[in-house]
Amino acid sequence: MDSTEIQQFYARHMQLLDGGSAEAWARTFTPDATFTAPSMTEPVRGREGIAAGARAAIEDRAAAREVHRHWVNMTVTSETDEGADAADGTDSTEAVSYVQILATGRGAAPRVLLSCVMRDRLVSRDGELLVAQRRISRDDRPLS
Amino acid sequence: MDSTEIQQFYARHMQLLDGGSAEAWARTFTPDATFTAPSMTEPVRGREGIAAGARAAIEDRAAAREVHRHWVNMTVTSETDEGADAADGTDSTEAVSYVQILATGRGAAPRVLLSCVMRDRLVSRDGELLVAQRRISRDDRPLS
Amino acid sequence: MDSTEIQQFYARHMQLLDGGSAEAWARTFTPDATFTAPSMTEPVRGREGIAAGARAAIEDRAAAREVHRHWVNMTVTSETDEGADAADGTDSTEAVSYVQILATGRGAAPRVLLSCVMRDRLVSRDGELLVAQRRISRDDRPLS
Repeated sequence: MDSTEIQQFYARHMQLLDGGSAEAWARTFTPDATFTAPSMTEPVRGREGIAAGARAAIEDRAAAREVHRHWVNMTVTSETDEGADAADGTDSTEAVSYVQILATGRGAAPRVLLSCVMRDRLVSRDGELLVAQRRISRDDRPLS
Repeated sequence: MDSTEIQQFYARHMQLLDGGSAEAWARTFTPDATFTAPSMTEPVRGREGIAAGARAAIEDRAAAREVHRHWVNMTVTSETDEGADAADGTDSTEAVSYVQILATGRGAAPRVLLSCVMRDRLVSRDGELLVAQRRISRDDRPLS
Repeated sequence: MDSTEIQQFYARHMQLLDGGSAEAWARTFTPDATFTAPSMTEPVRGREGIAAGARAAIEDRAAAREVHRHWVNMTVTSETDEGADAADGTDSTEAVSYVQILATGRGAAPRVLLSCVMRDRLVSRDGELLVAQRRISRDDRPLS
């Protein structure tokens, strides 16, 4: 998969999330995708759990009367060996991106809510990109 | 038109605006383009009005001794039917992007002035991209 | 060189710097590259000087317990005549980009530390992009 296709994927993917479409967003993950973030005590697996997490975030920001925008950029990609699944012939790419979340309240100036690094394993299924694995690290909570 | 071409268009387009070239910026719109933004009581139509609006914004930020940078990213594109004009054979694309405006005063830290969504209808004329229609929504003034 | 390749180059390039790899970062410049920034009294020439500057910056932010992220976007490219070197057959491109640096302290909200314009002359050597010349201007210190 090429970098232009990946960039377009992330644009659609994040516009779905920011637009409040939790279920459509979850369908841009594989059915058995895993999602790991610092705010989670353990990884979420599967589209239902991912959609539930998105719905909770969407409700929280609606309650706060805020609009969130996930900006993804500076994506470095590499083909992965472990991702290549000879059995089902999928193509797999590791994509490491910077993410910033802009939050804007009504009548307020935007603020940069979070700066993160997003490590995705992307797979191509039936000509469509999907996230098979996502690991988020937050710059305000470095691992070391 | 492909997404790489659109991205390069927005880079040139916004560097013209931020660099203070109101007339050159206006020429990246079609002669009869419409421009709609929350700060306008009605849409502006045509390059002269668009250039006049840009000149006013450029003068305001010069008076405030500020530099503005329009960042465009997360562009989702789709071919439009209504845009396809069989008569003149133009190609038309709907492009929905996130925009953030960074404002920096002399000796000051940058601040995120605005977070917006920019909905453009782009057309290709004589091998050149132009904005035929622009609609801006501001995240601090949600429609609903 | 095409704009997708340049974008991927900047992603790798800045992830190296932000990740603390001063020497690997310096190797993405030509051996005799020049680097000019407002904070420097004179330009730095060559990879050793560039690596030393990066190491100092990396140590400073480690001491401040901060994570920095360099975002590059809005790149406008043009082929340069002066850059074309008939003798060694290199291809040369002028790339003018916006840069924002996000700084995040432990437990703190990110802040936009700097908004800059980065003017690079990029060359292709043995199929690899390298920075031959870099000039940085800061929006908080306009030239005029």
